[in-house]
Parts: sequence; structure tokens; C-alpha cells
Amino acid sequence: MKPVQPLILKTYKAAISLRRATERSIKAALTDLARSLEANSAALIRANRKDLARQDPNNPRTDRLLLNEDRVRQIANSIRTIARLSDPGGRLLEEKELKNGLLLQKVTVPLGVVGVIYESRPNVTFDIAALCLRSRNGCLLKGSSEAEHTNKAAVAIIKKVLKAHGIDPDCVTLLPSEREAVQELFTATKYVDVLIPRGSDALIRFVRKNSQVPVIETGAGVCHIYVESAAAIHKAVNIVVNAKVSRPSVCNAVDTVLVDAKIAGKFLNRLQPRFLEHKVEIFADPHAHKLLKAYPYLQKATPADFGREFLSLKCAVKLVSDLDKALDHIREYSTKHSEAIVSENQKKCQRFLEEVDAAAVYANASTRFTDGEEFGLGAEIGISTQKLHARGPFALEKLVTEKWLVKGSGQVR
Amino acid sequence: MKPVQPLILKTYKAAISLRRATERSIKAALTDLARSLEANSAALIRANRKDLARQDPNNPRTDRLLLNEDRVRQIANSIRTIARLSDPGGRLLEEKELKNGLLLQKVTVPLGVVGVIYESRPNVTFDIAALCLRSRNGCLLKGSSEAEHTNKAAVAIIKKVLKAHGIDPDCVTLLPSEREAVQELFTATKYVDVLIPRGSDALIRFVRKNSQVPVIETGAGVCHIYVESAAAIHKAVNIVVNAKVSRPSVCNAVDTVLVDAKIAGKFLNRLQPRFLEHKVEIFADPHAHKLLKAYPYLQKATPADFGREFLSLKCAVKLVSDLDKALDHIREYSTKHSEAIVSENQKKCQRFLEEVDAAAVYANASTRFTDGEEFGLGAEIGISTQKLHARGPFALEKLVTEKWLVKGSGQVR
Repeated sequence: MKPVQPLILKTYKAAISLRRATERSIKAALTDLARSLEANSAALIRANRKDLARQDPNNPRTDRLLLNEDRVRQIANSIRTIARLSDPGGRLLEEKELKNGLLLQKVTVPLGVVGVIYESRPNVTFDIAALCLRSRNGCLLKGSSEAEHTNKAAVAIIKKVLKAHGIDPDCVTLLPSEREAVQELFTATKYVDVLIPRGSDALIRFVRKNSQVPVIETGAGVCHIYVESAAAIHKAVNIVVNAKVSRPSVCNAVDTVLVDAKIAGKFLNRLQPRFLEHKVEIFADPHAHKLLKAYPYLQKATPADFGREFLSLKCAVKLVSDLDKALDHIREYSTKHSEAIVSENQKKCQRFLEEVDAAAVYANASTRFTDGEEFGLGAEIGISTQKLHARGPFALEKLVTEKWLVKGSGQVR
Repeated sequence: MKPVQPLILKTYKAAISLRRATERSIKAALTDLARSLEANSAALIRANRKDLARQDPNNPRTDRLLLNEDRVRQIANSIRTIARLSDPGGRLLEEKELKNGLLLQKVTVPLGVVGVIYESRPNVTFDIAALCLRSRNGCLLKGSSEAEHTNKAAVAIIKKVLKAHGIDPDCVTLLPSEREAVQELFTATKYVDVLIPRGSDALIRFVRKNSQVPVIETGAGVCHIYVESAAAIHKAVNIVVNAKVSRPSVCNAVDTVLVDAKIAGKFLNRLQPRFLEHKVEIFADPHAHKLLKAYPYLQKATPADFGREFLSLKCAVKLVSDLDKALDHIREYSTKHSEAIVSENQKKCQRFLEEVDAAAVYANASTRFTDGEEFGLGAEIGISTQKLHARGPFALEKLVTEKWLVKGSGQVR
């Protein structure tokens, strides 16, 4: 393994020089990166095949790792969108003259160096590099060893483009894929400003537990939909089905459906055929189990099924007697990602929106919308499920910090 | 020691109820707390005497612990100021209707539960409790065992006032002063939203290393003033003297003065008599040492004297050849708190303001202004020296997080 410390230091220094790069060169480098990525797609896909060859083709991770012409084009388009976004740094947030004549300005500035620890999706490599370049941050990429060849080829393309535009290629650094590399990241408080784990819950917990660099958590979402007694049944069914089946492997997919007992019979009758089409496996509490007994993919829910992020075509269902009970359940099991109520009763919707403590709280819509692009924020680093700095989609605009500038003429206190 | 877990859980629950308290009751409770504090000052000062009796009267910490009528009045006035500030929660930061008809709102909401680990100043107990009440956050106070009697008396006054105003007194909880209590805080990720260490550098490092709850670092400031070659000498002398002697024990006091070699003779000649009045001890690099050899309190600087936070009437002095060298030194030794340049050359000031990476960067003013009250933000929890969420004075307006509210009519993705 290459020593990691010198790589971190190089990136730290390159990030300082990136602050002085012209706006024009950053925009041009990003546009050129999209073009160069498409031009070099064959080489990138070849590298990707080497990684794929080592994988079990039946593992869902293998599909996440896969690159093809179509996926490369999607990544290039995402980079083009990022190129069009404006620099989140250099904004004047506040300006005031104090009584003593001091001029006080609060401005946004780049964070410095952003470290991202992620798993096998190759688009993450390009997304993070492009977002960090656009916001003038250096980035340290710690991908998974499964994607080693792909990431090396990706970063080679990125570095070549940076160089061609007079930008220090050390701004984007791929760290060795061995797990030990992260230990050095965890203690690099002088050179790394934030660490972002992007992936499984186990990865996130590991980073949180061990990092001394501030961490922004992203990812794990145990999401609930509460079908309230005044719900429009057809809306509730559509929303639940969409939130479960449209992309079950992602964090904003629903995990538990809470159904008001008063409408449970009607709602579950309408839900069953729709879930059946997609062979959704239901984990039901005793009350729901009685109502669902004809459903072929039915299990009795164990306590562990509530609070479980399924990431697959599985769904827990529980009957509740009222809004308070639904709120209690969510408070106990939510990971504070995305939570929804379906109801035509505006007062109850309002209470749910106010009282549920989560990054995104919905009334009468699918939890699947929690996403940077959907919210109009552009590509995201991840969905933050903690409360400091960034909450919900963590996109370009949050890749900055603040700085106070104080201009005087000799003032003392 | 009392078990800590149930105390944390109680505060978590009380914080939920605090979200529903009326604006009127919060304002009234704060105003009443100021009044009640003054009315009960005798009892509070009696408790404080018990703590003082156990201290070495020659230790500077003892003065920090001391309460008297005057200090109680200052604390009460600070609470009155906080009562007049408006709730930082419940603000609409952004609102847009998406193409699919979803109404998206980004609003500010309380963080939830704030844990503060601090040392012996009794005003911190009241400031934190008042700021958290004003922003509808529960707070867990972990003071030092030296202030145990004082803090118990303080929290008793606070709880009595909360109760009288129909607010759950568990919103403000004093944790046992034994060090083991913090271990429970470090892992309470489900119930505590942020931990703020306020005190020595050792305390901050201990919290950063051990906490799994997100931490906002406050405090340690190794502050520099760079006296550039085009500095107005009288301003430079005033600023350096003020930044060193007006309150040497605080984090925004200057630690190292970097002097451009071209004006060093002139500047140090004028500085010496002023430092001498206050018996400031100078730790000089070899070049400065030659120019200062007549100064009675002179030491040769060791490498460890640069990057040292003196918190006393001591000051390191080093000659530098130009702005780049000053920037390099600051980059190496700064704790990113407060940094200043003194110069009449606007271009150099501008470069310094742009390139120095710190919470507050000054041109021609004393570093001592880095303070919530001075910046017009009100009382502060501390000075944040990290980059996420809050940077610089961490005051009421940052005791919130964001939440996305999404209102639909059945939208699916």
C-alpha cells in the first residue's frame, strides 16, 4: 500500500491553489471532463470489466458496479449539469457596519478538503470530483477495492483534464483501496475538513465511531408512510406502491407502512393486488396479519422488522389506533431520513409535518422524492441524516463554510 | 453517581414538549429567570462560597468560578438580552413549487437536545440554559466538579422558573459532575443531537476523540497578528497591545506577532515600552531577539512557542520577510480562530483576508473582537473553530437545523 499521509498533504496544498483558479478554467475543465469521459468510455469500460470479472454476477452489488455506454453518458450529463451550476463560494451572506466603524462581512468559502468513503458505484467518483471542483474543494476519494480498476481509470481521465486546464491534478486524489487507508483519514484533522461516508449503515457507523475529522452522515433511511384514517385510499395505495417498488434498493424507499385501524381493511384490500404484482413480501404485525391472511408473500413481523431498512421488495405493515401512536412509532424507529403521512385532513397533516423529526417530511407524496435532483439542488454527495451543516440532500450549495471578514482602521476593544 | 441514561431520556422527552410551548411563555420564563436570579442571588452566592472554599485562591480558575452581586447582575442582564432575541426556529428559508406540483419548503427547527461540557464559569450554566430555552432545545449541562454546588443552585433556580411557566423543568438537566457521566453522553446518538465542549484544548480533544454524537468544537485560539511593511506603526502597536493585554486569558487574545523585517526595528522600539507597562513576556525568534535585547522580560523562543496558546501575558514574536512567509507561518500554526494583518496596503490586506483560513480574519483591527456580542449576534455558546454548521461566534441563530417539508396531492416518482 502506498503511504497515505503524503497523498493527503498534496491534496491539501492543491486545494489551496484551487481557490485561486479562474472561474473560466473551472467551468471549462468540467465541460471538458464530460467530453473526455465520453471520448474515453471504451478504456473506462475495459477497466470496469476487469473489476466485474472478479464479482459474483448474482450479487446486486455487481449491477451497481457495472458501467456501459449508457451509464457513461448519464455520468457525463451529470457533470455537464454541475458545470452549469454557479460557484457556491464567494457569496456575501451578511454585511454590517458596527458602531465602532468596523465593517463586518460574512462570506462563503470552500470547505478545503473533503474526504469521501464510498462503495462500488463508479458514478460517485465522477460526481464527487465534479462537485468538489465546482466548489473549489480538494477531494480524497476512498472507493471500494471492488471498483479499483474502474476508479483508477476514472481518476486518470479526471487528472488529465485538470492538467490541461492548468489546475493542479492533485486536487482529486484516489486513496489506496485497502481498508487501512481510512485510518489515516480519521486522524488527519489538520488537513481534512469533513469526512462523508456514503454507503451501508455499517460503513457509516464505522466512520462515526472512529473519525476525529468531523463527519456528515448520509444514507441509511428507515422510512415510514402513515396512512391516516382520512386518507384518500387510491392516493395512499399509489404512494405506498411507488415508495416501495420504484427503486427498492435506495434509502428513500419505504420500509414500514403504518395504517390507521379504522381504514385498514379497505386500504389493505386495495394494496394487496398491487404488491402482489411485484411480489412484495409483507411482514405484518398481528392485527395486519389477520387482514392480510390471503396474501401469498406474508410473514409475521418480528420486533426486528420494525426499524429495519429492507433495501429490497420487503415491507413491514402495522396497524395503529391514531396519529399519536403513529408519531410514537416513528419517533422510536425512524432514522430521520424521509417520513410521510397520507390524509385529506389538513390539520393532521400539519401536525405530522411539524412533529416528525426528519430531514424530509411529506404530506400526500411518495418518500422517493428525497433527492438532490428532484429538489432542484443538482447532483448530491448523499442524503444527510444528521442535523448539523446539511440536512437532507447534501448538494453543491453545502460544500462551503463561512468566514467572517472584519475590516477596520485601527479599532481596539 | 446517579445513572445518566434516564436523565438524558427525560431531557429528550421534555425537548419534544418544548416545541409546543407558546412564544409568550418562553419569553416570560426568560424574563422571570433574570428577575428570579437577582432575587435569589444570596442563596446562589452562598452555594458558590462552598465551591470556592475547596479551591486554591491563587489559582486563576478560582476567579473564573467566583460569583458576586455584580457578576450575578451581569448574568441576569445577559438573560434579559436573550429574552429579547427572536426564536431562530420556524423560519421559512426557501419555498418553491416543483413542476410536478409538489410544494417544497425549507424551514428552521430546533436541533433537539444540546449537550455542553464545560469548566468552571457559572455564567455558562445560565447562558446555555437561556439560549437553549429561547431556541426550544433541551440542554444537558455537564459542568466541572469544582462548580458543583453553584451549578446545582443555578439549575434549581432555572427549574423553578420553568415550572412556574408551565414548561417541563426537565428541559434543563444538570448531569452528575463526575467524569464518567460524559461517557454516556458520547454514545447517546439517538437522544443527543450535538455536543459542545467549552474549555481547554485538552477537553476539546478528549471530546472529539471519544464522541459519536456530532461535535462542534469551540475555543482554542492560537491567534496571529501580522505587522506588514506598510503598517501604520501607531495602529499596529495599539492593536497588538490591545490584543495581548486587554484580556490575556481568552481565546481571541493574540499569541504570536509576525513582523515584516523591513519595519521590525521601528515597530519593536515602539512596542517595547507598552509591553513593559504590562510586564508582557516576549518569546523571540533569533532575528527579533537581536532587536529586543534591551527588553527585560525576554526569552529565546523554542519551536514549541509558536503554535502555543499562552492564555497569559506572554507573546511570541517572529520576523518574516514578506506576506507569503507570514501566510505560510499562519497556515502551519493557526487554529483557525482569529487572524489579523495590519497594513495600509489595501491589496495586501485583501490577499490576507482571502487566503487566511480562519473563522474571523481581520485587517487593521484587534483580534479581540471575535465575540458574539461584539458581532451583534448576542450571547454565544462558544467560538467555533471548525467549519461545519457554525464558524466563529456560535450564537442563538445556529441552535437550529433545517427540515424539508413537502406538500403534495398524491404525487409519485
